Amino acid sequence: MDHLKPTSANSPPLTPLTFLDRAATVYGDSTSIIYNHTTYTWSQTHKRCLQLASSLAGIGIRRNDVVSVLAFNIPAMYELQFAVPMAGAVLNNLNTRLDARTISVMLRHSESKLLFVDSHLQALAHDAVSRFPPEITPPVVVLIKDYNCLLNDDVGIVTTSYEDLVKKGNKNNSLSNDDVGFEIVTTSYENLVKKGDANFRWVRPVNEWDPITLNYTSGTTSSPKGVVHSHRAIFILALDSLIDWSVPKKPVFLWTLPMFHSNGWGFTWGMAAVGGTNICLHKFTAGDVFTAVNRHHVTHMCGAPVVLNMIANSPNAKPLHNPVHFLTGGAPPPAAVVLRTESLGFIVSHGYGMTEVAGVVVSCAWKEEWNRLPVTEKASLKARQGVRTLGLTEVNVLDTESGLGVKRDGLTQGEIVLKGACLMLGYLKDPRATAMCMREDGWLYTGDVGVIHPDGYLEIKDRLKDVIITGGENVSSVEVESVLYCNPAVNEAAVVARPDKFWGETPCVFVSLMDGKDGGGSSDEILKFCRERLPHYMVPKTVVFMAELPKTATGKIMKSTLREMAKNMPPSMGNSRM
Amino acid sequence: MDHLKPTSANSPPLTPLTFLDRAATVYGDSTSIIYNHTTYTWSQTHKRCLQLASSLAGIGIRRNDVVSVLAFNIPAMYELQFAVPMAGAVLNNLNTRLDARTISVMLRHSESKLLFVDSHLQALAHDAVSRFPPEITPPVVVLIKDYNCLLNDDVGIVTTSYEDLVKKGNKNNSLSNDDVGFEIVTTSYENLVKKGDANFRWVRPVNEWDPITLNYTSGTTSSPKGVVHSHRAIFILALDSLIDWSVPKKPVFLWTLPMFHSNGWGFTWGMAAVGGTNICLHKFTAGDVFTAVNRHHVTHMCGAPVVLNMIANSPNAKPLHNPVHFLTGGAPPPAAVVLRTESLGFIVSHGYGMTEVAGVVVSCAWKEEWNRLPVTEKASLKARQGVRTLGLTEVNVLDTESGLGVKRDGLTQGEIVLKGACLMLGYLKDPRATAMCMREDGWLYTGDVGVIHPDGYLEIKDRLKDVIITGGENVSSVEVESVLYCNPAVNEAAVVARPDKFWGETPCVFVSLMDGKDGGGSSDEILKFCRERLPHYMVPKTVVFMAELPKTATGKIMKSTLREMAKNMPPSMGNSRM
Repeated sequence: MDHLKPTSANSPPLTPLTFLDRAATVYGDSTSIIYNHTTYTWSQTHKRCLQLASSLAGIGIRRNDVVSVLAFNIPAMYELQFAVPMAGAVLNNLNTRLDARTISVMLRHSESKLLFVDSHLQALAHDAVSRFPPEITPPVVVLIKDYNCLLNDDVGIVTTSYEDLVKKGNKNNSLSNDDVGFEIVTTSYENLVKKGDANFRWVRPVNEWDPITLNYTSGTTSSPKGVVHSHRAIFILALDSLIDWSVPKKPVFLWTLPMFHSNGWGFTWGMAAVGGTNICLHKFTAGDVFTAVNRHHVTHMCGAPVVLNMIANSPNAKPLHNPVHFLTGGAPPPAAVVLRTESLGFIVSHGYGMTEVAGVVVSCAWKEEWNRLPVTEKASLKARQGVRTLGLTEVNVLDTESGLGVKRDGLTQGEIVLKGACLMLGYLKDPRATAMCMREDGWLYTGDVGVIHPDGYLEIKDRLKDVIITGGENVSSVEVESVLYCNPAVNEAAVVARPDKFWGETPCVFVSLMDGKDGGGSSDEILKFCRERLPHYMVPKTVVFMAELPKTATGKIMKSTLREMAKNMPPSMGNSRM
Repeated sequence: MDHLKPTSANSPPLTPLTFLDRAATVYGDSTSIIYNHTTYTWSQTHKRCLQLASSLAGIGIRRNDVVSVLAFNIPAMYELQFAVPMAGAVLNNLNTRLDARTISVMLRHSESKLLFVDSHLQALAHDAVSRFPPEITPPVVVLIKDYNCLLNDDVGIVTTSYEDLVKKGNKNNSLSNDDVGFEIVTTSYENLVKKGDANFRWVRPVNEWDPITLNYTSGTTSSPKGVVHSHRAIFILALDSLIDWSVPKKPVFLWTLPMFHSNGWGFTWGMAAVGGTNICLHKFTAGDVFTAVNRHHVTHMCGAPVVLNMIANSPNAKPLHNPVHFLTGGAPPPAAVVLRTESLGFIVSHGYGMTEVAGVVVSCAWKEEWNRLPVTEKASLKARQGVRTLGLTEVNVLDTESGLGVKRDGLTQGEIVLKGACLMLGYLKDPRATAMCMREDGWLYTGDVGVIHPDGYLEIKDRLKDVIITGGENVSSVEVESVLYCNPAVNEAAVVARPDKFWGETPCVFVSLMDGKDGGGSSDEILKFCRERLPHYMVPKTVVFMAELPKTATGKIMKSTLREMAKNMPPSMGNSRM
């Protein structure tokens, strides 16, 4: 059989971009996007993405250039998930909750060429770009104007080359910080769409391992890591997630999950595959969710447990007319929240994933017979991470000492490891971190500690890396600690998760102060120090002063003890001194 | 980004075999197979496949050895779709409708090591094996005993090595043809299952391009071609088909489509992916279908239009209690048949595929708005082949002269070409045929002539290669003609399709006889000659004698004229003289 090798006919690169061409044929007249009073069909979305991709290519964006996006869940954000890679570029979605300093670091690290910015995030983008040192060219900023003003949106200057944009951009991009109301764009998003060619032949990847996305994640070190995914990984993940969640044709998908979170767990592309309708929301309350669900007959939505919690506890909560499938992940959903939302008519599924695996690759795979169990038992089964999806090749829990698989008894803990086609290519410009994560033994080490139950289902027990998950966002305790350690008043600092009814967890810091500085370190000062250096969600919500942090014999801070303390704090307890 | 390359963690080979391990965890207690009084769960099927694979490896079956199967849709046939590749071998399903001569040719061509045989096909297998010349070792035949006799099935001799089996097999495998009732097996299927190790670590492909299946197809030449598929292609095809047909979790799948037809269009593996229940049928009537549908609450089934026709015209036909999804392919379903079966409660989908693409890769992708059209218009839309599935990268219709895509006007004809990950690796030991089919321009040439409608949907109009599709089986006219040309009485012969209410089409032969042999060539003689040399379904149903066949100026037989004649023959017309 050895004479049979791949040919050009049977090995065209796998890529999710082919979903959009097909959607234009099969679902051309169906609604693709609804956002307030803006509505598109799949043939319009297809055309707009081709036009935008053509404009990007036209101004000089080349294969493997990075194009960044800082936007809420608006139509442009959805379109860019296709248009940027259709121009051959690598799509870099930025977390809108980050601070200007972090965004600036990411833009520089990725050497981003263009930055598309939601009009509501203009100031943040400006701040980030203005932090570039004069010798480094910042990305050209392209404004996505408010959708309410779109009708008057043809006044932007259309330039013909990237160099031109850089030149004009830099000129306007005055570095003086007090120039707040200035114009940082030389063209607008809608102008790029309008001037593009709808017959553009989009840039197919040369190889399916070519990069398609760059998503920054808070890692264990103080600098963020850029996770790069291939076209192949995204193709497999997107189809895999549709099957795992049994998504039918033409679902109505409500975007409560930020698209910048692993590209909406791959459902941005997945919706094109099944001709779904994307209901976009800018910012939302629980009331907005119920309104959208009823108005648009929503069938599917995703979100962190904090969104599930928001829905469950909303005064607007009313039983649904039709069931809505809710896929949650990022942290195990609390049993009480699952029960409450299911009683309203939501069908909750729970999946496990991480930026490094592009979406959900382990899921709680519900069994019919479990429906007969008592409600609390059901909820705790649903909170388990579960089994690998079809797209993942293997999952295991390895003993951290021996490296062997742990006993499947639901008790023996080890590190969760993964192997499969949805895994990242690696971290951008960080071969050391890549090799630490994806090791030579063929496993990706998640840093999560788990057990395997006798029925083969996986459950996360703890996090090796002490990541705190607050409102669906990962906060690396090490990252926060490294900032605290910059404060001259601080002697020692340790950040752990404190359980929180609303956020799931919040960062809680235990601090001992330098000799003689006891009086000088107030919790307000500590928090102010953090706020100036960290995005809002990373800033500790609780500060506890201790004379000395508990340590092991070898001098290592006993985080497990601190975690226990944080866990047992009365809800009323704020910042304190011990 | 160039530093980011595939690693062992993110590039484990894609293979559908991983579906079975997962099914044992997620669907362990659910029913996997029902066949008369035999029932298995997914954990039993998983265990039996591992045991069988372990026995195959134990007796010496090695990576890339070919293992053949000649069986109806019985549980063993289903298990072998997993067990053979789990031993690292290449699975070669044989068409049970073939004659012994053709099967013998295939076994020799593939150098098959083992042949699993359904007890009801023992005589055919014996005949095929006994045709091996003495200097060539035939495959060892392993009998799959009748499931009614399974309880007494532990009398077989279990041997320890393949060499041993060959030795014992050959000794018993007396070549005398009149030894009909003899014992050709040295061990039985159930013995191999029983003696195997359920903890066997199945043989993973080294590379996802490694071969998994070998399926013979009637091609344009007189010798059958062996289509080899990779693990990767089957993985993609299986998931793709589940999404395209919106197959939910735990469907109940009735096996009317022979599993030897492209491994049941990939649904053999697909059912493990979604934890379906496989309802096996040996041979069946329309009555059996209705009985099975009602008894087992069948949700999904596949079959050629001839099966749809059989159901539509059955006196047992009664409206269904619950809708049954019926996926048809191989030939366009006649409008009247679609209407009649849909009125009973079947939901008919239509797909297009071929052995070379592993399953359905173009499908009629129904649009909601078409439901409002008149019934006949609906049926003709449903008969179109449609649009590519998500797993196929591109499809086009090329002008045979210029090689350019035809106008999308529903009128301009060209050859249908495909590009995508589900395409075969190539033809076994036939690089010339492989290169003719998958050309350097990156397309697989299907040999089918089609048009593209203005809405982007594809429709087959004719077949370049004059293939006749009779009862879902492809008959190559060239193959039948080459047999006819061996008859000394025959001067010229041309075989074309004659429309047939039941079979869709039947082969119709136009013959001119040698000078002076006019009296000697009766239609009975011609048919007898064919029957001795061809499988039954390939034998022409109509013979027409002509003084001379119509020809073009360059001397080429005008098949189009003959096809017109065959099309316009009155139904009553049998063999005739013109």
